[in-house]
Amino acid sequence: MTVTVDILKPAPWPRKVFSGVQPTGALHIGNYLGAVKRWVELQEAGEDVTYCIVDLHSMTLPPEPETLRHNTLQMTATLLACGIDPARATLFLQSAVPQHAELSWILGCLTTMARLTHLPQYKEKSANMKEIPLGLYLYPVLQAADIMLYKATHVPVGEDQIQQLQLAQSLARAFNNKYGRTFPFCETLVNDGSRLKSLRDPAKKMSKSDPDPKSCIMLIDSPDTVLEKVKKSVTDFKSEVTFNPEERPGVSNLITIHSLVSGKSTDEICREAEGKNTGQYKLMVAEALIEHLRPIRERMVRYTQDVGFLASVIEEGSERARATAEQTIDEVKEKIGVDCFNVKRLRTNVRHENK
Amino acid sequence: MTVTVDILKPAPWPRKVFSGVQPTGALHIGNYLGAVKRWVELQEAGEDVTYCIVDLHSMTLPPEPETLRHNTLQMTATLLACGIDPARATLFLQSAVPQHAELSWILGCLTTMARLTHLPQYKEKSANMKEIPLGLYLYPVLQAADIMLYKATHVPVGEDQIQQLQLAQSLARAFNNKYGRTFPFCETLVNDGSRLKSLRDPAKKMSKSDPDPKSCIMLIDSPDTVLEKVKKSVTDFKSEVTFNPEERPGVSNLITIHSLVSGKSTDEICREAEGKNTGQYKLMVAEALIEHLRPIRERMVRYTQDVGFLASVIEEGSERARATAEQTIDEVKEKIGVDCFNVKRLRTNVRHENK
Repeated sequence: MTVTVDILKPAPWPRKVFSGVQPTGALHIGNYLGAVKRWVELQEAGEDVTYCIVDLHSMTLPPEPETLRHNTLQMTATLLACGIDPARATLFLQSAVPQHAELSWILGCLTTMARLTHLPQYKEKSANMKEIPLGLYLYPVLQAADIMLYKATHVPVGEDQIQQLQLAQSLARAFNNKYGRTFPFCETLVNDGSRLKSLRDPAKKMSKSDPDPKSCIMLIDSPDTVLEKVKKSVTDFKSEVTFNPEERPGVSNLITIHSLVSGKSTDEICREAEGKNTGQYKLMVAEALIEHLRPIRERMVRYTQDVGFLASVIEEGSERARATAEQTIDEVKEKIGVDCFNVKRLRTNVRHENK
Repeated sequence: MTVTVDILKPAPWPRKVFSGVQPTGALHIGNYLGAVKRWVELQEAGEDVTYCIVDLHSMTLPPEPETLRHNTLQMTATLLACGIDPARATLFLQSAVPQHAELSWILGCLTTMARLTHLPQYKEKSANMKEIPLGLYLYPVLQAADIMLYKATHVPVGEDQIQQLQLAQSLARAFNNKYGRTFPFCETLVNDGSRLKSLRDPAKKMSKSDPDPKSCIMLIDSPDTVLEKVKKSVTDFKSEVTFNPEERPGVSNLITIHSLVSGKSTDEICREAEGKNTGQYKLMVAEALIEHLRPIRERMVRYTQDVGFLASVIEEGSERARATAEQTIDEVKEKIGVDCFNVKRLRTNVRHENK
């Protein structure tokens, strides 16, 4: 057997996971089961993971400063409570790493207005606006910078973000073509179908902005509240427990939640629930959910009160993130030519001139 | 006599001059007499002056890295040669101060797409483009950040920049209204009418991109070249020397140059040139110009060869600029609420929670 090594092919990029979350305050179980739980699993699987609280993205529709502050603290506490471990994951705050904005400017100069105008999220969100905030148009560029700054190869995202990520991919390609191999092509890790439905109207997505608070279970909800919300969830007129999201969205949504918190398959769950009616099954789901959320909720309460602890975690994470970000931005600046007063560069120049 | 002091009125902002120049490489005498000479005069008048080589703006139409590097070095040498004194002026490189990009992102979130689309320079430059580079659209926001980061109260600009500056003014107003008094309202110091004309076609502006090199005198031109270009400059069929820019643009352009380098009024110059024909007068202008440029040119040659000196000047200036920029960005971050892990802020929070 002969082994051929292609010496012209560059070494593959080291596998690196990056994802960001806006500091929107409290999370509901849909956010948790659809995204944050996946982040924890990637960390547990031994991946190189970097998670960012993207407070600069929140500025695209500027919140009240006090709200933003509160939400940032709460998001930090929540991520840690959900199992993000600062010893194994780099957890940091976007605004604490100035290179995000720097790279965003540089990347912005490599794209066109039309490219951004055609992104579907922009089209959708701006459709009914009279005055379009500039941030709404620009934020995919900052998002690309977020990812590229850490040379991420894998980016867990929701389905609605796939096309945004294509901008990061095309900017990486554009930069590499112009200035040489610098950025990996990042792949999306799509959070698979765990988009939970409203408990009150299973035709809709679960959303914390739903006017009916019973439609949505928050991570911070007490066991009694969880029990009540599950009990009052809308199912249908059939009493047995079967999984059929198309025809029986209500009970199927409960089975999905149950499956995600227990790790059991939907088939397994239906077998276990055989002979039970939906009313009895709701108690099973509530119990499993309450037990799953209990330690998370306890840690959330504890961490939220310990601002000093949260700050030390974020400070350390941001320092680690900055070290990587600085390396990338130095490399980028050297490649684009804004580095002429960089000492390392200078030595090369002088050598060159003395030839 | 009673003196009333309005204690509700905030103290006026300290007078601070800021201006930026793109590292476009060599300057012609129009750039020098219209802008850089004015910068030096403001410095000589004892103003608090900050001058920035805005290399990130060059990225709006990305130049070759080697060209950008070369032009940045040359611009630094030129500004110093023209009389910018690093002991009295803060001379620095934009890309060495990451807060420009940071503030640009934050300010961008306070404006709308329509606001930028209506800026006349954008409209003009993008009119015939099929694909509009994003940077061309965005750069007035970065320009506003440049100015506001140093809380500049006075900004020397060319006439074509006045409307761009209005964006900085409206962003300062918007920020102050939303978050409290933070930025001064900056006034423009318009470089008064010293826009020189082409020596070959006095109906056009002097421009280094003119295909006819004789149309334009570069700062680096040798005395012989200056003499030749002035001699070959287009005037008209009248032989006496009179100042009338409308009807006699050619000779009037020479008188303007003469006036700017000598400090004499155009009237004075016309009196001195009485009895001379335009051919003889050209020799007078050339001599005055050559003598004015001689020390500048000598210093340019010397500085360009001393990259270490240029680097030390820019490093020191950038460090000074960064100190101010950091103060402003910290203040901005605190006001918009992205400061929750800032130690100073934390102490306040904890005090607040313990109440």
